[in-house]
Amino acid sequence: TRQHRITLLPGDGIGPEILAVTVDVLKVIGKQFDLNFEFTEALIGGAAIDATGNPLPEETLKICRNSDAVLLAAIGGYKWDNLPRHQRPETGLLGIRAGLGLFANLRPATILPQLIDASTLKREVVEGVDIMVVRELTGGIYFGQPKGIFETESGEKRGVNTMAYTESEIDRIAQIGFETAQKRRGKLCSVDKANVLDVSQLWRDRVTLMAEKYPDVELSHLYVDNAAMQLVRNPKQFDTIVTGNLFGDILSDAAAMLTGSIGMLPSASLGSDGPGLFEPVHGSAPDIAGLDKANPLAQVLSAAMMLKYGLNEPEAADQIEQAVLAVLEKGYRTGDIMSEGMTLVGCKGMGEVLINVL
Amino acid sequence: TRQHRITLLPGDGIGPEILAVTVDVLKVIGKQFDLNFEFTEALIGGAAIDATGNPLPEETLKICRNSDAVLLAAIGGYKWDNLPRHQRPETGLLGIRAGLGLFANLRPATILPQLIDASTLKREVVEGVDIMVVRELTGGIYFGQPKGIFETESGEKRGVNTMAYTESEIDRIAQIGFETAQKRRGKLCSVDKANVLDVSQLWRDRVTLMAEKYPDVELSHLYVDNAAMQLVRNPKQFDTIVTGNLFGDILSDAAAMLTGSIGMLPSASLGSDGPGLFEPVHGSAPDIAGLDKANPLAQVLSAAMMLKYGLNEPEAADQIEQAVLAVLEKGYRTGDIMSEGMTLVGCKGMGEVLINVL
Ligand SMILES: CC(C)[C@H](C(=O)O)[C@@H](O)C(=O)O
Ligand SMILES: CC(C)[C@H](C(=O)O)[C@@H](O)C(=O)O
Repeated sequence: TRQHRITLLPGDGIGPEILAVTVDVLKVIGKQFDLNFEFTEALIGGAAIDATGNPLPEETLKICRNSDAVLLAAIGGYKWDNLPRHQRPETGLLGIRAGLGLFANLRPATILPQLIDASTLKREVVEGVDIMVVRELTGGIYFGQPKGIFETESGEKRGVNTMAYTESEIDRIAQIGFETAQKRRGKLCSVDKANVLDVSQLWRDRVTLMAEKYPDVELSHLYVDNAAMQLVRNPKQFDTIVTGNLFGDILSDAAAMLTGSIGMLPSASLGSDGPGLFEPVHGSAPDIAGLDKANPLAQVLSAAMMLKYGLNEPEAADQIEQAVLAVLEKGYRTGDIMSEGMTLVGCKGMGEVLINVL
Repeated sequence: TRQHRITLLPGDGIGPEILAVTVDVLKVIGKQFDLNFEFTEALIGGAAIDATGNPLPEETLKICRNSDAVLLAAIGGYKWDNLPRHQRPETGLLGIRAGLGLFANLRPATILPQLIDASTLKREVVEGVDIMVVRELTGGIYFGQPKGIFETESGEKRGVNTMAYTESEIDRIAQIGFETAQKRRGKLCSVDKANVLDVSQLWRDRVTLMAEKYPDVELSHLYVDNAAMQLVRNPKQFDTIVTGNLFGDILSDAAAMLTGSIGMLPSASLGSDGPGLFEPVHGSAPDIAGLDKANPLAQVLSAAMMLKYGLNEPEAADQIEQAVLAVLEKGYRTGDIMSEGMTLVGCKGMGEVLINVL
């Protein structure tokens, strides 16, 4: 029996529902693979604000650091939208990324054949799309100093943020990019804005330098505006994309939307040691919270990513991924991915058919 | 007879070819509307680097300032890609924007019914799409100080750029956004990243404040990652988008690519006084330069934008736009927009059929 300590962060909106289904799935998987999961729940986001006034209580960070992996559901909601920024749910998310040193964010955008019609793009354009965006997550303009709203000499306000990367910050994420491409189809596209930004020029220089160590990876560079275009024009040209925090935020969302089914997409955030954090790409969907309508599959697939990237249990991860495909193959759909002739199920119902398949 | 002094900046790659066709069209229009265009050519981009070592010679800025409007074709090419940044073609473009104070960049993304099949998106998703992106063009991270590559205390390099906006910079572009929306369908979407960036928080506050002056405009806000998604998910929801320099760069390109025919899209860059600059959205396409294969229509439509926004000749502008539609209706296509059953023409050929229609 292998032991894995998992921190559960249900967060807000549909978070608790989709996480509950996922824990049920993990329990079944644990029995099958003789794994002993120890779950500890902690507060983050709006739920933490309501309970403690702080979107990321120190206690939560402590519990996470004491575990082998963190499974996060979703944070945020209208209720907390007008609080000052340091008290907002998003600040808890940025805090946990920084606090756990999660500098590498892996965001797959994969078209599942069963859901191809959900895409707004033509079938022939998206068929077979399988992109992995490797986004830097603890640097760049999200964390650069100075930042704030300052008064200028003329007495007006000036808002300031700083996009900055050091060589070592670039190197460690570039390395993840190259290694990820190696395990995939061997193509890495680095995205920057080196024709305008100095920070991007340094980025491009370092990535280019590192390419020498990975002769088996084919490296290309795109400016971020062109990358956004190319994702729409011909997404199949991409295998692995590596980019900074802000560009990764934008491009991974655009790539996710190409699939048309963002309720299916997981993500992993990894540091150099300590637990990784695994969460769906979609948000907390406050409008359908508590109605048993949410699609739990992105959360379930995030648990699969956790098993694969965080707990070194690739067989268990595979088993979950196969089960998700099987359930789709059998025609079960939540509302967000429903189409004619399929069987509509709720969040819990989707959990039940998953467990039946397992 | 009204007199208009126009600076022509052919630039690089296909630039000279598409501009030549456009000048022919303008000459015909001039006769029809009794306008006297005085054309002066000047150097920019790679052509200027080759001739003077400087991508934007002082002489060029002087000629532009002395004219009523500037018609730019395209800049850049492989040849100049490895020069130091201050000697690169792009630097000439940034220089002319700053030098002429062109803070407002208007980028339409319109689906033409004749070309709808060129889109990679499904017909029902893009049919009728008509978006105007209003991008701030002389501020934000493109120009913010400090910037550069600095040495840290530990001796490694750190690349730095600054995203900054003052209240007055935000106000003047927000005003263009509201006024543009007023002349269109009355909907303005402001795009920022206010959940993370201080500069975006100030942006959102100022735009929200200004909305009080435009009760007839319906204002909404989106985070940039979500905006990139929504452009793919349902582009018809957008009328006018107003955003900063970097986000505008990315989103206007993504929006342009929704149409599938970027060879058709013009743009206008305007200041508070002095000449505006009008240019196609597409680049210099060095691979087809000189082969008479380029699509001149984005350049021709840029001349129409010049007539409308820069020279206050809306009838002449309309006439050009109608002629472009008529030529497409008759089935003439350059290679980039060619499809079955249509008549393939080259760059010059497209100019000839346009002039016949006029
Ligand atoms: C909620 C927000 C702070 C966050 C980000 O910008 O990183 C989100 O968009 C994401 O991509 O995880
Ligand atoms: C060439 C480059 C400097 C420019 C920009 O980023 O503004 C281009 O992408 C554009 O959008 O006009």
